[in-house]
Amino acid sequence: MEDELTPIEQIPPLDESAMWAAEQELNHKTKPRGSLGRLERLAVQYAGIRSLGAPPPPEPAVLVAAADHGYAEEGVSAYPAEVTAQMVRTFAAGGAAICVLAREAGARLVVVDAGVRVPVDVPGVRSVRLGAGTANATAGPAMTREQALRAIAAGIGLARELGADGVTAIALGDMGIGNTTAAAALHASLLGVEPARVCGPGTGLDADGVQAKVSVVERALAANPLTGHDPVDTLAALGGFEIALLTGAILGGASERLAVVLDGFIVGAAALAATRLAPAARDYLLAGHLSPEPGHRLALEELGLDPLLELELRLGEGTGAALALPLLQAAVAILSEMATFDAAGVTDACR
Amino acid sequence: MEDELTPIEQIPPLDESAMWAAEQELNHKTKPRGSLGRLERLAVQYAGIRSLGAPPPPEPAVLVAAADHGYAEEGVSAYPAEVTAQMVRTFAAGGAAICVLAREAGARLVVVDAGVRVPVDVPGVRSVRLGAGTANATAGPAMTREQALRAIAAGIGLARELGADGVTAIALGDMGIGNTTAAAALHASLLGVEPARVCGPGTGLDADGVQAKVSVVERALAANPLTGHDPVDTLAALGGFEIALLTGAILGGASERLAVVLDGFIVGAAALAATRLAPAARDYLLAGHLSPEPGHRLALEELGLDPLLELELRLGEGTGAALALPLLQAAVAILSEMATFDAAGVTDACR
Repeated sequence: MEDELTPIEQIPPLDESAMWAAEQELNHKTKPRGSLGRLERLAVQYAGIRSLGAPPPPEPAVLVAAADHGYAEEGVSAYPAEVTAQMVRTFAAGGAAICVLAREAGARLVVVDAGVRVPVDVPGVRSVRLGAGTANATAGPAMTREQALRAIAAGIGLARELGADGVTAIALGDMGIGNTTAAAALHASLLGVEPARVCGPGTGLDADGVQAKVSVVERALAANPLTGHDPVDTLAALGGFEIALLTGAILGGASERLAVVLDGFIVGAAALAATRLAPAARDYLLAGHLSPEPGHRLALEELGLDPLLELELRLGEGTGAALALPLLQAAVAILSEMATFDAAGVTDACR
Repeated sequence: MEDELTPIEQIPPLDESAMWAAEQELNHKTKPRGSLGRLERLAVQYAGIRSLGAPPPPEPAVLVAAADHGYAEEGVSAYPAEVTAQMVRTFAAGGAAICVLAREAGARLVVVDAGVRVPVDVPGVRSVRLGAGTANATAGPAMTREQALRAIAAGIGLARELGADGVTAIALGDMGIGNTTAAAALHASLLGVEPARVCGPGTGLDADGVQAKVSVVERALAANPLTGHDPVDTLAALGGFEIALLTGAILGGASERLAVVLDGFIVGAAALAATRLAPAARDYLLAGHLSPEPGHRLALEELGLDPLLELELRLGEGTGAALALPLLQAAVAILSEMATFDAAGVTDACR
């Protein structure tokens, strides 16, 4: 089983000579050096990821993983658990927010059932089921270590498959009623902070609801004393299936030299777990947006990532990651399409 | 002459019933209410601007106005004045940053020579010349009141022409060596703040250069004692031609019910002048990005606008406005393409 995680050992460093070539190219474009700010750094990072000084336009995909959570039994969401399956069907039918935003970005959409309670067996949904929802982590582990490993391996496999199919940038998203609670438990455990610092309203709790969520996270942490620092054990204890699969997608994406665009708080938990397993994966990450969930800022600080957008999105599904794709596309277009000072006959004050 | 400014009197309020219809529609989409944050507010604003509860996809244009500045004689830029004309030629040839970003956003690009020192007479550049660069405002007015009025009228005319031609959203940009000094003088005068609070490095000054710029702005303000509060007089005194033209484009855009996407500090000066002339124009504005120039934040606060992006851009040309266009396009697509709870058969917890 653990053999399937060998890609973790195979994440290459960014290609520094490609980054240097991209930087030189940008410095000769008809603009003051560095005047396109983060857009230029994004282009250089992408050059390093793709190991190409002049990479072609990104070929983007949005990968949304869905699963149900035993936490939902604790009443931690404003929505009933059946909404997970209903939304997965809406993803497949093309009517969800992420469908619209993926189309706008010209990205293919890959929807994965990683363990919805009742299987969503419709065309357009990949079944990579690890179970019929996780167990309630307030009474013991959300899943077994073996399930967590299988979920990670499935995510690695999906990302590698997309890479083999020509995708060069994956935006990651999630769906799962109760999953901000799983993500909060993972943030608390992986960052070593109090649950109250990482619990927020999710998609619609009031102050009492947030307080109840804090207590659920506290009980989950108490029910799952983690002795070691193995992030696989942490994922198994606190869930969920989609977060473990997304952890694998990050690792598989990095090992395939894909740019990995993070969404908000849920995908942030996967990014924390992935970079604990393989710190080299960090250089492949872009933070699509900053979630209003209080734990997300802490995670991005730990990851050393600056969010590209801050639009008060609290939907998940990969919406914040998909909205950031046009910025990556624009950065790469600047690198490949802009004229140089010499070609344009413009006086460069910096030479 | 002043008759040409009648559109200023004709800016309609946003259509509240269209905004209400858009809000209702968004509340029935398959997502928790308000969970797409600023994207939803953008869609509602656009519905109000267009007076349509379900507006079709925006038809965007980028309007870049260029002119030279007498301030350049004071050595306020890292670049020589001839770069203005060279860059206008690069805009026409398709090789500048704004050309790339306009293409990425699917926007037509309109380049205007509003008064470059030597006319840029090439295909693809509209000539709306108010003069061969402004006069050096440290020795008296940058232009006459009549020139300022003609520039504003020209901007109004251009925006109305674009509106008549099917454009529904204009992103505004500027080019002009020395124009952050003109913009700083306008910010200081219109906001009533010390020049030191609104002078920054522009596209590449060091600390000494910024200090020299502060002193140039102080001298320009001293050389042009403004007794009244007429923004036309302020534009005439402190320049420049492209800023006065952009002021008109904002007014004309609002009078035609176009969404007007602002770029950074230079276009911000035009927005301050335009909203002083016609406060109703404010509701038609979107702030594309936050410039690192210190005065820009003050202007956006005065305008009551939150920037959509903050990417450390300091190029101008409309790059920050063009990069924000995909967010407007995404917001409108969410409004028109997402499924409702009823249509998708999803349980809505909020009903």
